[in-house]
Amino acid sequence: MILREIADLVSGHVDSLHESVEIHGPASLVEAGAGDIAFFGNAKYLPALRATQASAVLVPHGFTEEIKPARIWVENPAEAFAKILARFAPEPIVHPPGIHPSAIVAPSAQVDPTVHVGPGAIIEAGVKIGARTVVGAQCYIGHHATLGDDDFLHPRVTVRERCKIGHRVQLHSGAVIGADGFGYELKDGRHVKIPQTGIVQIDDDVEIGANTTIDRARFGRTWIQQGTKIDNLVQIAHNVRVGANTIICSQVGISGSTRIGSYVTLAGQAGIVGHIEIGDQAIVAAQCGLSRNLKSGEIVCGSPAREIQTWKEQAAQVNRLGKLYDRVKKLEEAAKAAPDLPI
Amino acid sequence: MILREIADLVSGHVDSLHESVEIHGPASLVEAGAGDIAFFGNAKYLPALRATQASAVLVPHGFTEEIKPARIWVENPAEAFAKILARFAPEPIVHPPGIHPSAIVAPSAQVDPTVHVGPGAIIEAGVKIGARTVVGAQCYIGHHATLGDDDFLHPRVTVRERCKIGHRVQLHSGAVIGADGFGYELKDGRHVKIPQTGIVQIDDDVEIGANTTIDRARFGRTWIQQGTKIDNLVQIAHNVRVGANTIICSQVGISGSTRIGSYVTLAGQAGIVGHIEIGDQAIVAAQCGLSRNLKSGEIVCGSPAREIQTWKEQAAQVNRLGKLYDRVKKLEEAAKAAPDLPI
Amino acid sequence: MILREIADLVSGHVDSLHESVEIHGPASLVEAGAGDIAFFGNAKYLPALRATQASAVLVPHGFTEEIKPARIWVENPAEAFAKILARFAPEPIVHPPGIHPSAIVAPSAQVDPTVHVGPGAIIEAGVKIGARTVVGAQCYIGHHATLGDDDFLHPRVTVRERCKIGHRVQLHSGAVIGADGFGYELKDGRHVKIPQTGIVQIDDDVEIGANTTIDRARFGRTWIQQGTKIDNLVQIAHNVRVGANTIICSQVGISGSTRIGSYVTLAGQAGIVGHIEIGDQAIVAAQCGLSRNLKSGEIVCGSPAREIQTWKEQAAQVNRLGKLYDRVKKLEEAAKAAPDLPI
Repeated sequence: MILREIADLVSGHVDSLHESVEIHGPASLVEAGAGDIAFFGNAKYLPALRATQASAVLVPHGFTEEIKPARIWVENPAEAFAKILARFAPEPIVHPPGIHPSAIVAPSAQVDPTVHVGPGAIIEAGVKIGARTVVGAQCYIGHHATLGDDDFLHPRVTVRERCKIGHRVQLHSGAVIGADGFGYELKDGRHVKIPQTGIVQIDDDVEIGANTTIDRARFGRTWIQQGTKIDNLVQIAHNVRVGANTIICSQVGISGSTRIGSYVTLAGQAGIVGHIEIGDQAIVAAQCGLSRNLKSGEIVCGSPAREIQTWKEQAAQVNRLGKLYDRVKKLEEAAKAAPDLPI
Repeated sequence: MILREIADLVSGHVDSLHESVEIHGPASLVEAGAGDIAFFGNAKYLPALRATQASAVLVPHGFTEEIKPARIWVENPAEAFAKILARFAPEPIVHPPGIHPSAIVAPSAQVDPTVHVGPGAIIEAGVKIGARTVVGAQCYIGHHATLGDDDFLHPRVTVRERCKIGHRVQLHSGAVIGADGFGYELKDGRHVKIPQTGIVQIDDDVEIGANTTIDRARFGRTWIQQGTKIDNLVQIAHNVRVGANTIICSQVGISGSTRIGSYVTLAGQAGIVGHIEIGDQAIVAAQCGLSRNLKSGEIVCGSPAREIQTWKEQAAQVNRLGKLYDRVKKLEEAAKAAPDLPI
Repeated sequence: MILREIADLVSGHVDSLHESVEIHGPASLVEAGAGDIAFFGNAKYLPALRATQASAVLVPHGFTEEIKPARIWVENPAEAFAKILARFAPEPIVHPPGIHPSAIVAPSAQVDPTVHVGPGAIIEAGVKIGARTVVGAQCYIGHHATLGDDDFLHPRVTVRERCKIGHRVQLHSGAVIGADGFGYELKDGRHVKIPQTGIVQIDDDVEIGANTTIDRARFGRTWIQQGTKIDNLVQIAHNVRVGANTIICSQVGISGSTRIGSYVTLAGQAGIVGHIEIGDQAIVAAQCGLSRNLKSGEIVCGSPAREIQTWKEQAAQVNRLGKLYDRVKKLEEAAKAAPDLPI
């Protein structure tokens, strides 16, 4: 593809001098080499722009600096770049309708004829699967579980018995939906297991990352509501409820029965105790340890969690402790030197 | 089921007026709707009780408040509720003895005829499996590993070669028992792998959560003793020894060769360094970072870990730092204003 | 094996009195019993040495204390012990060339005839696998992925489409290589998925732990360079680049596009934000929360991360806060008691 064609694709402008430069694909400023096109959308990447080996770079209108690569001026370099990525994207893997001969589907399972069931997948008795859903290779769908329409289960997902998955849900490899909640009662010195007879319910448009675990409820349901996105290696305990359109980053842990609102952000490695409530649009910072309710919109940092402004002030105060010790020492010396101070 | 029958089931009392109320199942106060029965066992849930949509609620003897749902008076609402949960629990999945035709069992494996081997499971040469054990779908049991009686391996568990699992052990989906310990020696600038030739030994009545990893020993064994319960996504490194009846919550990490006592509690996301000892009944709080030995019964919080009382005092002192700065400033101003102080 | 033979094996010296002591295998000082040989290489294990039940112990030349077990004097007890471990190691599992009849290999896959493909493994269209590589039971190798020579994939590894694995790479059970990066754009209140069309590239001699997840790049590659070793349950996000011979311990999380140098150490449960750079040989302590660039050789601790010396000083200052409060109080009392101080 030549730059002329790329400029047309992104409604951009290229100097006629560079129109016929050959482009083989998109790359970042840092990784790009000859034949690559990159984009520059943020002033902080100016050093990377000046050092890039790309043959061409998307720049915003009004950008005037002379650089080594050819420039394509566009309205929004990031959006234009996304178009180029899509144009050069590898052909997606096709998952045609049908059940692979090595898959094991119980006779009582109701699998829509448009569903793809990959090699080695196991679908137990009483399962229902909606239209156009892809059940990847080696997935396990437990007894009486239900999948919706247009779900995409990557290879090797586990959905335990009776769990309910909505429509357009994506589950990544290694995710375990519906393992037993972690609950015991101490009786005569032994931890006796409390039966975990509930389910996990995952609503429409949810995405769940690789090797994430969401435990089934003690009774009732552990519930992930519509549009929520969950990253890899996250732990969600029994009876947790996560509201709609919430973002849960990698390695977050949420203990039992906690209720989380909508549009909440839980950053990486945050830990949330059980039986609390987090209001809508609250933000819990990375590695935060939260053990109290949060109001809507609250932002907390640190372990234990403090309101962000308090947390910043305390961090600054701790940073200045050395000076505080010095000041107190000076006062003590002054006091000792004073004739009439009883110190 | 009508309330009369439920009252009989839990040895409770219901007003004759409500005896014929129809109940479809148990639910929590918050999630309950018409036809559900919930329980009220703790005064802090009074607001939830007053707002519940349940048709009936289990309350303790002596509870007199008038509420919308019908009341059943019982000795212990939580225990009574557990009975109702058991009564309404879905029928458990049955795992009859026998080997699924798609499972691959090595001829030299000794599998008790009462064992259930699920679809797609693989049992390698020299494995021994005791009576009534369930090997779930797609499990992998490595060469010469042994499973005891009445174990339950949920779908997709990995047990690597030569590991030893006791009786009545439950392993959840995605758990990896016996991957290589993480050990290298730096030689001429390269990390050379130290052979990990030991095993993992898991004693009777242990439960291990989904996607938890327990590494095999460098030599000898990594050892989880009787009755210990381990949650999801926990990491236990090579040669660790965990005593009996200990509780390890989700996302805890334990480094190599650490020895942990009995009835210890490691709360969520705690991190424990290698080569230390933790005494019986010690408690390590959530997100704690522990790098020293703990005596029996010690309770530690924070990262780095401090004894709980010290940790609380320091947290309070840090919270009041703003005021301390103010006080020092006031003293300085006073000193400056004083005629004869050398400050 | 008798002690005479063991002494010969490790070029050590044993008193003739003990030459014929029968040894059944190696064990640690703590775990050893009759018939075991242990080693003593570090003075801090002297109490364990004195208490050991081993029949023999490797000790350094010059060690004179009389102990219950027989002594073998050697140059380097740890190295000598490694030789004994190797001598007593169980026979390794053999993975002969060939494709298990239950494996499913796409006709277009190019699998070297020396490759071992285990039972239940699935190899999709367009995959290439080099010489002598072992693809363990139930592994999934996605479309057009490539594996090198002498790789070892333990049972149940997932490699998603188009990812590239070098030579002599070891991947442990449950690892997921190439799941989608976690990226969304908020449009009209919905999180719209950003396509993740790149790959994961893993260079030669890398080892990756059980249930670790390495996400594919948004475009281009997530890149793990030669000789780097990664432990269990680690999360590496899209477009991260990890340099050569770096050590990443269990449960570390690295956010998107961060670039890590060579010979870096990331200790357990450390969390690294996205879009930063970590210089060669830097060390990030356990549970550290890092959100800024690190220079080569920098060592940081704490959350948020501070240079190690600063972190130690601040920890000491916080530990003495109680005394500081006392000192300020004393000054205030002195000031109040003074006749001419305006406090």
